[in-house]
Amino acid sequence: MGSRWKNSGNCCASGMLSLCVLVSLSICLSRAEDSAMENIVTEKKAEESHRQDSADLLIFIMLLTLTILTIWLFKHRRFRFLHETGLAMIYGLLVGVVLRYGIHVPRDMNNITLSCHVNASPATLLVNVSGKFYEYTLKGEISGKEIDDVQDNEMLRKVTFDPEVFFNILLPPIIFHAGYSLKRRHFFRNMGSILAYAFLGTVISCFIIGLLMYGCVTLMKQIGQLGGDFFFTDCLFFGAIVSATDPVTVLAIFNELQVDVDLYALLFGESVLNDAVAVVLSSSIVAYQPQGDNTHTFEAMAMVKSFGVFLGVFSGSFALGMATGVMTALVTKFTKLRDFSLLETALFFLMSWSTFLLAEACGFTGVVAVLFCGITQAHYTYNNLSPESQDRTKQLFELLNFLAENFIFSYMGLTLFTFQNHVFNPIFIIGAFLATFLGRAANIYPLSFLLNLGRRNKISSNFQHMMMFAGLRGAMTFALSIRDTATYARRMMFSTTLLVVFFTVWVCGGGTTQMLSCQRIRVGVDPDQEHSIGPDGIERRSTKHESAWLFRIWYNFDHNYMKPFLTHSGPPLTATLPACCGALARCLTSPQAYENEEQLRDDDSDLILNDGDISLTYGDITVSTDASGAHTSSRPSVVAANSDELDRELALGEHELVIRGTRLVLPMDDSEPPLPGDVLHRRSGALS
Amino acid sequence: MGSRWKNSGNCCASGMLSLCVLVSLSICLSRAEDSAMENIVTEKKAEESHRQDSADLLIFIMLLTLTILTIWLFKHRRFRFLHETGLAMIYGLLVGVVLRYGIHVPRDMNNITLSCHVNASPATLLVNVSGKFYEYTLKGEISGKEIDDVQDNEMLRKVTFDPEVFFNILLPPIIFHAGYSLKRRHFFRNMGSILAYAFLGTVISCFIIGLLMYGCVTLMKQIGQLGGDFFFTDCLFFGAIVSATDPVTVLAIFNELQVDVDLYALLFGESVLNDAVAVVLSSSIVAYQPQGDNTHTFEAMAMVKSFGVFLGVFSGSFALGMATGVMTALVTKFTKLRDFSLLETALFFLMSWSTFLLAEACGFTGVVAVLFCGITQAHYTYNNLSPESQDRTKQLFELLNFLAENFIFSYMGLTLFTFQNHVFNPIFIIGAFLATFLGRAANIYPLSFLLNLGRRNKISSNFQHMMMFAGLRGAMTFALSIRDTATYARRMMFSTTLLVVFFTVWVCGGGTTQMLSCQRIRVGVDPDQEHSIGPDGIERRSTKHESAWLFRIWYNFDHNYMKPFLTHSGPPLTATLPACCGALARCLTSPQAYENEEQLRDDDSDLILNDGDISLTYGDITVSTDASGAHTSSRPSVVAANSDELDRELALGEHELVIRGTRLVLPMDDSEPPLPGDVLHRRSGALS
Repeated sequence: MGSRWKNSGNCCASGMLSLCVLVSLSICLSRAEDSAMENIVTEKKAEESHRQDSADLLIFIMLLTLTILTIWLFKHRRFRFLHETGLAMIYGLLVGVVLRYGIHVPRDMNNITLSCHVNASPATLLVNVSGKFYEYTLKGEISGKEIDDVQDNEMLRKVTFDPEVFFNILLPPIIFHAGYSLKRRHFFRNMGSILAYAFLGTVISCFIIGLLMYGCVTLMKQIGQLGGDFFFTDCLFFGAIVSATDPVTVLAIFNELQVDVDLYALLFGESVLNDAVAVVLSSSIVAYQPQGDNTHTFEAMAMVKSFGVFLGVFSGSFALGMATGVMTALVTKFTKLRDFSLLETALFFLMSWSTFLLAEACGFTGVVAVLFCGITQAHYTYNNLSPESQDRTKQLFELLNFLAENFIFSYMGLTLFTFQNHVFNPIFIIGAFLATFLGRAANIYPLSFLLNLGRRNKISSNFQHMMMFAGLRGAMTFALSIRDTATYARRMMFSTTLLVVFFTVWVCGGGTTQMLSCQRIRVGVDPDQEHSIGPDGIERRSTKHESAWLFRIWYNFDHNYMKPFLTHSGPPLTATLPACCGALARCLTSPQAYENEEQLRDDDSDLILNDGDISLTYGDITVSTDASGAHTSSRPSVVAANSDELDRELALGEHELVIRGTRLVLPMDDSEPPLPGDVLHRRSGALS
Repeated sequence: MGSRWKNSGNCCASGMLSLCVLVSLSICLSRAEDSAMENIVTEKKAEESHRQDSADLLIFIMLLTLTILTIWLFKHRRFRFLHETGLAMIYGLLVGVVLRYGIHVPRDMNNITLSCHVNASPATLLVNVSGKFYEYTLKGEISGKEIDDVQDNEMLRKVTFDPEVFFNILLPPIIFHAGYSLKRRHFFRNMGSILAYAFLGTVISCFIIGLLMYGCVTLMKQIGQLGGDFFFTDCLFFGAIVSATDPVTVLAIFNELQVDVDLYALLFGESVLNDAVAVVLSSSIVAYQPQGDNTHTFEAMAMVKSFGVFLGVFSGSFALGMATGVMTALVTKFTKLRDFSLLETALFFLMSWSTFLLAEACGFTGVVAVLFCGITQAHYTYNNLSPESQDRTKQLFELLNFLAENFIFSYMGLTLFTFQNHVFNPIFIIGAFLATFLGRAANIYPLSFLLNLGRRNKISSNFQHMMMFAGLRGAMTFALSIRDTATYARRMMFSTTLLVVFFTVWVCGGGTTQMLSCQRIRVGVDPDQEHSIGPDGIERRSTKHESAWLFRIWYNFDHNYMKPFLTHSGPPLTATLPACCGALARCLTSPQAYENEEQLRDDDSDLILNDGDISLTYGDITVSTDASGAHTSSRPSVVAANSDELDRELALGEHELVIRGTRLVLPMDDSEPPLPGDVLHRRSGALS
């Protein structure tokens, strides 16, 4: 941090040596009344400004209120063609039109241009006005054009937010909620595919789109349609930001119609992670700074450095997010905060928020950190909370997510008219639409093919088409594009991104239901009885996990060490840790862990039974079913103890066997079509 | 709005004519790299600044987290001597010490002073840096001294918030929650007294303190201890801000120990309203601007104008708050939003927030508006919400209140060390403590005496002593004092206010339990069976309301018109409105109103039974008790139908008679000590 200041200091010093004349024309306004009047004038200006700010925010609140009422109306009438986000955008558009063409607030002509010599723009400026000092803070750079034009619409400037508002205030709740509400069961089952789509897929998409756009931009340059610089790095940047999908509309419909859980998991998991990847990828691309004169040529070192930035920022954010989640879990485990729901909820909220601030303070990416914090909180901390706190935290973040999301989408609509530096270029726009489409295709289809080589439960082609169709763009893409609109290239990208978002949300979002029926994707699937129709039409249970070995490793680690460490679940650490750590294990194990031999059951409990689970469960009752649905009971007393049997149990998929016989969901063997007498036999075989 | 600009324009124009030389020394930095380097330097500065801001906010989050954990520890061990707010202050102090003496961040020496000629400080400044334009916004005025001193602690400046943060972000949730959680039953019962204390009492306190402080300040001037101007208006301002009580600590203890509900109601109601009064009073005092040279002489017109400002702002804010509350009630009544708890909660939140913004945009006081909005929402809208939404909204505002309050109190502690312009003057401080004490006494005792002339349920002297003792100062006083610390007088007031708050919160707050036992105030009172011990030691039911006639008018209006209009309760408007409004009445009456002849019962239902209530209630079962506690049943069939009997029923106080016989609380006649055989007889007599 110090060296950066030194560098700028060197530059400034050399300039200063040659330029060190402070011009002091200070005119005395001798009359005291003038000075008092000035005070009043300044105070009144501040007051006016405050009133104006309140009025602006009020516009947004009214927009949101209107959106809520309309959403209710739509839900009431089961109108599924326009989801909340699409609706919010429409209302934003309408208000934008009104503000742009309906209202004119003349610009304050008292804004004075000082052409004073400074050789760098300091963060704070002290201006001497006849003996009084006023402090000014740097808001940002504005282009010469903006000043020269007769800017007579102050209103538009006022309703324009600082883009950092999105990253600091609006996106974190949305991303945290996405992590906190991840349906972990299905997520982990499809973990390999999700990671592939999110990482590899986003990078592929970024480069494909970047290359295609570069072609487009080169073409535009040839025919003289390009109004400014547009480098390859800009194209890559566009590729990165437009690769972040946000299928919130589609997922809402999936949820409502109860579409296949694997499809839901793939889409949701991919969108959540690819937001994180897109943010860091775009930062890495921006960080690409080769030495030498031309900052836009290819240089291997700079590329390696960018890649390093990507890795560093991503893992740093990931680590911070997990660390805070772990800390919250420990605090809620070892204190009796559960007795005070308000305190517990407040603590949870503060610690989650602190993740964001900590990541930002350390130079990482806050939104990525809160994502992983959310996932960690959902996986560990949630189990430690009291039932009231569980509800409260869920509801709190659900509300924040709802408000932030609709706010962003309203703002998107508004900004089509209030942003004063749009650059709409038909060729670029068409090129962008094509590139986005092809980029998505290059992401989904090849990867699905590769993944299907390893998956038992193939991702069918209609799923692939659906995923292709459901690649909506939304909040993250918008926020990334609006973050910096200084250059011509960035402005063109921003304007085009807006159109891409509008199109995908309205058209693709609105056409989801049709697409579902067109692709013959089943709806009304009970997530607890997951019989998926394979490509051969035979019903089989959703089965073994993709990267079974990877998942097994993770599962064992999580089950035997992490969960007992961070929650009250068993098996107790005293059993799983080596003897040398006995004292530590006793210290860290909570009393309940000794009782909870099986893992705590929560809404999205892990889907694998282990030995302990099997023994306890089978210690109570086993109910098997044959293909005709008849139930038989047996009380086997042998426990599956070796890994083959464990494998077979795992292969049997999820068991929702809950102690005390409240509900039993029956496993069916998935390796071959079930035959009438087989199941019972196989089960007995498994347990002998 | 336009005229204000014109006025300043005139002043500026005359100045401008004589001063219109724009100094343009623009030095070209010809090398492109420098320009690019400048961009990077600017970007890096912005990034650094952002990281610093995140780190600062993180400090506060950590403070709050620590506070929460300690609060839990205290609750766990039932440690009542230090309440959360006092604790938050202590932690703030500790961090303040560390920041002040432990950490040194040298001030950025690149801050440049421009002595450029402007004759007024514009809101926005455009600075020309070798061809690039940078926009600066006015942050505020700083004194010459601050610049001259070697300000080497940048850290302290960074953790200092813009005072408007308190009024715009932190206070609204606190005040709204106070209004929303007002125990209306007890509030309305003591409404007259509460209004007296809040309005008259605050004004009395303000003037007494103002006068005493003026004496103190004059004395200081005589002995040469006064370092700057301190006018009478400043003294009055101090009186106003220090009259705002905030007995949050005391009330928490009252709640926990279940102290007498009337005492609770008086204290809570007074504190909630006198915050509102203090805000508007202080604004009116600041608005006192006589014409002529000396702005601090007495001028009747200016005084009348100030009074007008007080009335105008208060009623305007009141009206706005109520209007938004009414609108929310109507929306929740006439839509089926109850089916969607998230939507309903979001709407509720947005509309409550919009109250604040609307009031601020119209030039009224946002916090006063949200107070009355909260009360209205609790009285009407709450009844329309679904049970889930009722819980959600309560919990949401409870959480926001908790976080905001502890934040403010932490900041108070911090600011003792981080504020760089303290003015501690022992004489002023001692004077302030004395004046505050005497001001409170002048508020409580005379008013109680006068009120007791009219009240049946006298405010006993031990109650008065308790109220005297419980006059803690807190968030509102602090926020009002920190709002403007430009002048010497304001700084001295701020520093002194801090000490007053510290003292009252720690000493008075900590001594509450002792004071309660010292004053022999009963604890463990079941709010449903309210037998208060009168001064003569005889147990009597809490009785007729203070301004019975005032209350009766309000009650009838509310019961017959407002509640049926805004909620689903009966009697239906078609019955109560005149025939000419039949169509309107039918339109506004909801179907449930025809069924709900009695008022909806909610947690804090109104305490008056009306004819309808009595008939239904007594239609089921009546259980009476005699002094020995024996229960007898009877089924009277005559309904009290005339106003005398209604009076007597009212005199019988609260009836917690719930339909369906789930719980019956028995009224006892309060006009004389209960005699064994009397009660049953009297009851029958009342109903015959």
